[in-house]
Amino acid sequence: MGATLHVFAHVLMAFALAFVVPMGWAWVHDDVTHEVQWAQAAGLTLASGLALWLATRRHKRELGTRDGFVLVNLVWSVLPAYAALPLGWMVPGITWHHAYFEAMSALTATGATALSGLDALPVSVNVWRCFLQYVGGLGVMLLVVAVLPMLGLGGMQLYKAETPGPMKDHKLTPRIAETARGLWGVYFVFSLACLLAYRWAGMSWADAFMHMCTTMGLAGFSSHDASLGYFQSPAVEWVAIVFMGLAGISFLRYFMVVRSLTLRPLWADREIRTYVVVLLAATGWVALMLAAQRVVDDVPTALRLAAFHVLSLATTTGYATTDYLQWPPFIPVLLLFLGTFVSCAGSTGGGIKMVRMVLLIKQARRELVRIVHPHVVNPVTLGGQAVPPTVMNGVLGFMLIYGAATVGLAFLLLLSGMDVVTAFSAVVATVNNIGPGLGEVGPAGNYGGLTPFQLWVLSAAMLLGRLELLSVLVLFTRAFWRR
Amino acid sequence: MGATLHVFAHVLMAFALAFVVPMGWAWVHDDVTHEVQWAQAAGLTLASGLALWLATRRHKRELGTRDGFVLVNLVWSVLPAYAALPLGWMVPGITWHHAYFEAMSALTATGATALSGLDALPVSVNVWRCFLQYVGGLGVMLLVVAVLPMLGLGGMQLYKAETPGPMKDHKLTPRIAETARGLWGVYFVFSLACLLAYRWAGMSWADAFMHMCTTMGLAGFSSHDASLGYFQSPAVEWVAIVFMGLAGISFLRYFMVVRSLTLRPLWADREIRTYVVVLLAATGWVALMLAAQRVVDDVPTALRLAAFHVLSLATTTGYATTDYLQWPPFIPVLLLFLGTFVSCAGSTGGGIKMVRMVLLIKQARRELVRIVHPHVVNPVTLGGQAVPPTVMNGVLGFMLIYGAATVGLAFLLLLSGMDVVTAFSAVVATVNNIGPGLGEVGPAGNYGGLTPFQLWVLSAAMLLGRLELLSVLVLFTRAFWRR
Ligand SMILES: [K+]
Ligand SMILES: [K+]
Repeated sequence: MGATLHVFAHVLMAFALAFVVPMGWAWVHDDVTHEVQWAQAAGLTLASGLALWLATRRHKRELGTRDGFVLVNLVWSVLPAYAALPLGWMVPGITWHHAYFEAMSALTATGATALSGLDALPVSVNVWRCFLQYVGGLGVMLLVVAVLPMLGLGGMQLYKAETPGPMKDHKLTPRIAETARGLWGVYFVFSLACLLAYRWAGMSWADAFMHMCTTMGLAGFSSHDASLGYFQSPAVEWVAIVFMGLAGISFLRYFMVVRSLTLRPLWADREIRTYVVVLLAATGWVALMLAAQRVVDDVPTALRLAAFHVLSLATTTGYATTDYLQWPPFIPVLLLFLGTFVSCAGSTGGGIKMVRMVLLIKQARRELVRIVHPHVVNPVTLGGQAVPPTVMNGVLGFMLIYGAATVGLAFLLLLSGMDVVTAFSAVVATVNNIGPGLGEVGPAGNYGGLTPFQLWVLSAAMLLGRLELLSVLVLFTRAFWRR
Repeated sequence: MGATLHVFAHVLMAFALAFVVPMGWAWVHDDVTHEVQWAQAAGLTLASGLALWLATRRHKRELGTRDGFVLVNLVWSVLPAYAALPLGWMVPGITWHHAYFEAMSALTATGATALSGLDALPVSVNVWRCFLQYVGGLGVMLLVVAVLPMLGLGGMQLYKAETPGPMKDHKLTPRIAETARGLWGVYFVFSLACLLAYRWAGMSWADAFMHMCTTMGLAGFSSHDASLGYFQSPAVEWVAIVFMGLAGISFLRYFMVVRSLTLRPLWADREIRTYVVVLLAATGWVALMLAAQRVVDDVPTALRLAAFHVLSLATTTGYATTDYLQWPPFIPVLLLFLGTFVSCAGSTGGGIKMVRMVLLIKQARRELVRIVHPHVVNPVTLGGQAVPPTVMNGVLGFMLIYGAATVGLAFLLLLSGMDVVTAFSAVVATVNNIGPGLGEVGPAGNYGGLTPFQLWVLSAAMLLGRLELLSVLVLFTRAFWRR
């Protein structure tokens, strides 16, 4: 435990640096009161990290698998507390429950907001909310590409056989830094392109920066209550569509494209092909419904609205430009459903991940054939290679726990008096790190009206979803703590 | 195909006999108009069967697995059409869509009714609806205990190793008759007891007969719009509670009790023990909520209401004595959820079945432990024996298809303009052969207001659920039709 805490102390101290960004913004705006508060938050975080570092400095050893699980749980449950501090100080009328929920929603790149009146908040607060999502996104990328696969978990480990270096390594710390450098390099290039595109589309630099942060992290916060609807700009929406679509694919693939100088890593991947087909098909269908049922008058608008909301929800970003709950009820449910599985493993998207869904469909088809031919062996394949039974069992186990967690958490919300649609959709929207749900927590509403109990349940849901469930739940098994 | 149709011709001719029961009732009531119509329905069914028998009399061979699948699909999709005829003739204002839905609901022991004004219908019509459920129940019992296991499907095949005779046999027809005799013998004894108990509790003979039919089949139709609420009688409710609870267990167990003259076959079974515990725990919890939230004033009433509705929904019977949608929203959702898995394999209940749920929970727990100990082999066990991986894969495949079917059917209903709660709950209520759902199709409403498209979707859902999904869907695979 000491060694784990020692590594965590490093993370905490590094995290203290993040407060520099909103502090800088406050400084630019000559907002001295808030500048001081940002410095206090940074100082407090740094001091905590330093104290922990000193207390644990004798514990230096290589971390093992169990330590890894403890570490990621610590990171995603304790950092939100520090991140929540300035929100609690600066947002008028906020409770600590709301602040922690908001910070958890940011760092898990969920984008479910418990705040309203965003446009009236100090700019540095909105910068913090959005930049936190960028930091969260960077963390998530490291988590899903480097950490979880080493722990034998996550959608990416299904690709274990074909990915390079770090994923085959069983020590935890050594080559994470290397992965981070490669991946983050590509990510920063895309981020810069996204920033410039938003600025070109007409956003202010501040808005362009904030929305770049929340687009690239598939995260979904905005500095406006009306989300991207505030800009009333097709150009802005098309920029979002393009970059959400790009960010729904693992940046490891782009990294491989850069290294191999061919596009093969993209189009050779069954997961990415399915991802593209599903997005196009869903966009076409929604556009057709919007046009046919005369929700909008012209086809180009129908296509843009459909593409924007399909991309936004399916990649688990969670932007909206209109209250799509007013559309035929099929559409919002479809959008939420897409969010549960469309984004690719290794992206910062949430949910089941497309690669798991591909495997599950193949497995279901296989079981149907096995009824007719009980003795034929036809293993499920991915990229031409047979998927080992233990891996397939892992995917099925994930689905079981995913289903049980969704139902269990929804029951907790129902017990607290929430209505059926809000309860189930809120859980789906948070466990899959999507953001907006249906009912009260739809795109035109928010999570601000929830009770503290409900906020904590959904904070747990975001954490569970982000750590792909098993990494959290394993801590609650006896086997984990028995040496 | 010829041989299958030949067997089906036998089934059709036997089914013609069923019309004798409502015909007799019409005769007793001197209701000559309807008496003639019942005779016509019987004649038409018998004639169809005879014609088919003659046309296929040269095709006599032992049926194989594929023929078995075709046969059960024929039985449960064609018999409802014949059963629907007299409903179409006799119920004022009914459409054929509604009549087929009602007959499907009866023969699959679902109990979702598309009719209202039941109390005003001719007695023989209500006798038919309820007796159809009894016939359906007898068929379902044969299906799940004898037919599906031979086809390598269904919850009961998980017990393959320990059950006698027919289940190990791979020919389809030979020993079904023997199973039927043994099982149905026990079933008739319970039915008689149930009939007398309802009569003792104050029902008329007609009502006692009809409710015996729909209790023992876990089916849920009533001769009154108010269901069992009509009687306003705690005695009636307790009789229902006892016999629903008994019928939720496989009658094969009672058969084994009779043969071995010990209770061991009951209490030695993990599935039955879990069934009892879940029912008691759910009853306790619901009673507590009803009392604590002052929905009812006294504890005995709370306990009776809780026990009645928990048993009714969990066993997939579907009776109600009150509009429980008026209770805290947690309760109706819990009741519907219990219906998806609580009844035991081999009973006439619907859904996932308790034995599958027990295995799924064990499998999920196993996958969690495997994260910490990747190399430890700890197979899932049932009754002390390891469950083979192929069987476990079958259960997981069932769950995948169950989930996909639920979502897919709900989407069809949403597309047709239905609201979210009604759509999802209607699918859950029909796929699991429960009966009442939430929203429009709740215990105080019914399925009469649905469009023809919606009724056909839900008829398909009932068929799918009753044949445990795979037996229907296998017909849609290429492998099935390729010789
Ligand atoms: K999001
Ligand atoms: K039923």
